[in-house]
Amino acid sequence: MKVPEPTLRRLPWYLAYAKLCQTQGATYLTSTQIAREIAVDSSLVAKDFSYVNISGKTRVGYEINVLIATLEKFLGFSQSHKAFLFGVGSLGSSLLHDNGLEQYGLEIVAGFDVKYELAGMQIGRKPIHHISHFGELQQKMDVVIGVLTVPVDKAQEVADLMVAGGIKAIWNFTPFRIKVPRNIVVQNTSMYAHLAVMFNRLHDI
Amino acid sequence: MKVPEPTLRRLPWYLAYAKLCQTQGATYLTSTQIAREIAVDSSLVAKDFSYVNISGKTRVGYEINVLIATLEKFLGFSQSHKAFLFGVGSLGSSLLHDNGLEQYGLEIVAGFDVKYELAGMQIGRKPIHHISHFGELQQKMDVVIGVLTVPVDKAQEVADLMVAGGIKAIWNFTPFRIKVPRNIVVQNTSMYAHLAVMFNRLHDI
Repeated sequence: MKVPEPTLRRLPWYLAYAKLCQTQGATYLTSTQIAREIAVDSSLVAKDFSYVNISGKTRVGYEINVLIATLEKFLGFSQSHKAFLFGVGSLGSSLLHDNGLEQYGLEIVAGFDVKYELAGMQIGRKPIHHISHFGELQQKMDVVIGVLTVPVDKAQEVADLMVAGGIKAIWNFTPFRIKVPRNIVVQNTSMYAHLAVMFNRLHDI
Repeated sequence: MKVPEPTLRRLPWYLAYAKLCQTQGATYLTSTQIAREIAVDSSLVAKDFSYVNISGKTRVGYEINVLIATLEKFLGFSQSHKAFLFGVGSLGSSLLHDNGLEQYGLEIVAGFDVKYELAGMQIGRKPIHHISHFGELQQKMDVVIGVLTVPVDKAQEVADLMVAGGIKAIWNFTPFRIKVPRNIVVQNTSMYAHLAVMFNRLHDI
């Protein structure tokens, strides 16, 4: 049963809220409480939870510890997924510095760049290699996730290289729509598109 | 006429593609070419462009230089928008380092944190202040955009503080659904939700 993307995007909100309630000392949480807090319909919360193997008790709701552990496992946050990062520019370096990603299951183990002067450096304690060493390292480390932070005009070329080298999932931070074979997972996080929405709405006020 | 959010999210893709074509020496671009490249329907491209004041010539299409300049202006990327950042942890520091945002119109001018030991520091050449100085600096600098990168359990509290201090638009990077008055713009960029989608789809392969 394929979990719909909107569900997968809402579950982390429920998780964040459950964690907050936990730090405030709560032990149980109902879907009605979640629905009210997140401002979605409670039937939607119940539907989202139907994809996850979570069972609550009538009236008292879900045991928070169990809810958190189950959601973290379901979302893949409690498991470590190794990833390579491609393009050690401004955004790429930032992500190498961000160890918050590890708490959510993503461990960037190395960065690659075309610039020879970057090879051999460490950024955020992650080694940087020249892009020509990717194939060799991929075979050794069997990394299947690639973070794409290259300039727009290199996005497709590097995506092709990633796929050819064995990457199965690409987290694309470029505003470019990369083309990949059907069996490759692509998740687009275009921060600039979010900026555009924010600027536009701000001017409408 | 309020521009729909999906349109605002697609326009930066068109812009990225137009810039790519420009570097490759093209001078004109048709909506059919854009549609084929971005893998959307060409009527959708035309509809998206109808919100922007762009006129193409029959058959030859849009003049690329004009298209790029018009889109950048429309999306707010060619204007500098000052912003404050709240929460100088791992992700917050990363964003202070990312000068790529400036190319898209966002200039983070200062960071705020509750930790007294961070006050007086500079990260990515941006000064860090104790959160207690926010009100005073906001009045001086008239910044209306706030980037929210605090821990989940502080998200609502800090959002309230931002709004009380005069922030009109919040770029929320926390996985928490903050509640704000109706006239405040919120743009959620939950990188962890994107990770969850990627992990899930990867396991489905």
